[in-house]
Amino acid sequence: MSKAGRLEEGDASKVPVPVGSNKGVSVMDLVLRLVGIAGTLGAAIAMGTNEQTLPFFTRFVRFNAQYDDFTSFRLFVFVNAIVCAYFVLTIPLSIVHIMRSVARGSRILLIILDTIMLALLTSGASAAASIVYLAHNGNSSTNWLPVCQQYGDFCQGASGSLIGSFGAIVVLILVILLGAIALSRHPKRVHL
Amino acid sequence: MSKAGRLEEGDASKVPVPVGSNKGVSVMDLVLRLVGIAGTLGAAIAMGTNEQTLPFFTRFVRFNAQYDDFTSFRLFVFVNAIVCAYFVLTIPLSIVHIMRSVARGSRILLIILDTIMLALLTSGASAAASIVYLAHNGNSSTNWLPVCQQYGDFCQGASGSLIGSFGAIVVLILVILLGAIALSRHPKRVHL
Repeated sequence: MSKAGRLEEGDASKVPVPVGSNKGVSVMDLVLRLVGIAGTLGAAIAMGTNEQTLPFFTRFVRFNAQYDDFTSFRLFVFVNAIVCAYFVLTIPLSIVHIMRSVARGSRILLIILDTIMLALLTSGASAAASIVYLAHNGNSSTNWLPVCQQYGDFCQGASGSLIGSFGAIVVLILVILLGAIALSRHPKRVHL
Repeated sequence: MSKAGRLEEGDASKVPVPVGSNKGVSVMDLVLRLVGIAGTLGAAIAMGTNEQTLPFFTRFVRFNAQYDDFTSFRLFVFVNAIVCAYFVLTIPLSIVHIMRSVARGSRILLIILDTIMLALLTSGASAAASIVYLAHNGNSSTNWLPVCQQYGDFCQGASGSLIGSFGAIVVLILVILLGAIALSRHPKRVHL
């Protein structure tokens, strides 16, 4: 124990980590989560309200495109709503981390949940992106025609809503990174 | 301060962490990475060799589907190859972690890289999955017909190769989790 104490003190003199050094990290974590809320909420609303009806129609068919014609877009809205709710729910925990730099279990929990949310959000955003790409470019070997010439506004709306979602993905990666740094940083320094 | 010190000793006596307790975690990390190599390699090869030529053809057109007709499938192969190479490259580091439980900087680095690879792999796998879904079901509002009736083998090959990739996603999530646990666990205990 005493040797450990000396070693620890030796470390401390070499690398002076000020007490409460996780505060900055935690504040940045909070800010990033707020950005993530904005991104995912914006993406979900933009995609969820995305609809276009063409100005011409036949007696039988009315040309109309809306997000829930596409399973991937439905998944996109669903996933963005979930991640947005998740961000809102973790705000209190993030505030607790600002005040209590020592918290360890809750940080691990957050890293795990963040990672799962990252996988979830990336899957939704990429599935939607691949459909948007197909709508723009079509595919000749399967004879899927590009539909963005007809549904221009719809395509633009869908493309735009991807931005918020990919922004939130970057936020999640940064938040995991900050969590790992904070975890590695509090080797009983605060207890000295 | 002294109160914190007392708290800490209380914690230590309550939860006895044996020296080198990260060894099991590191071994599991290594095993998971090997599973990840198998999954991503299998997925990349299965998709990369996926091709089907229909037995009928006209004088001008030969009906043929192969993976690189689809941008999402190309991305899928590319991403799986990258993640496979990444897994191979991190094997030595993982072995080092088994021997040196204390390693901290390299663990943080691994968590960050794992997270980026997770986002990359998930995006590739989901983009491919959304195309596979479309090939199976089609989409009526854009008049994209399901092509799996014609290209049955091609569709089956593409669906199958998704499995390896999604397995590797689970592996990455577990590996990040193990990394976070290992990081949080070595509070100078090994110096005793």
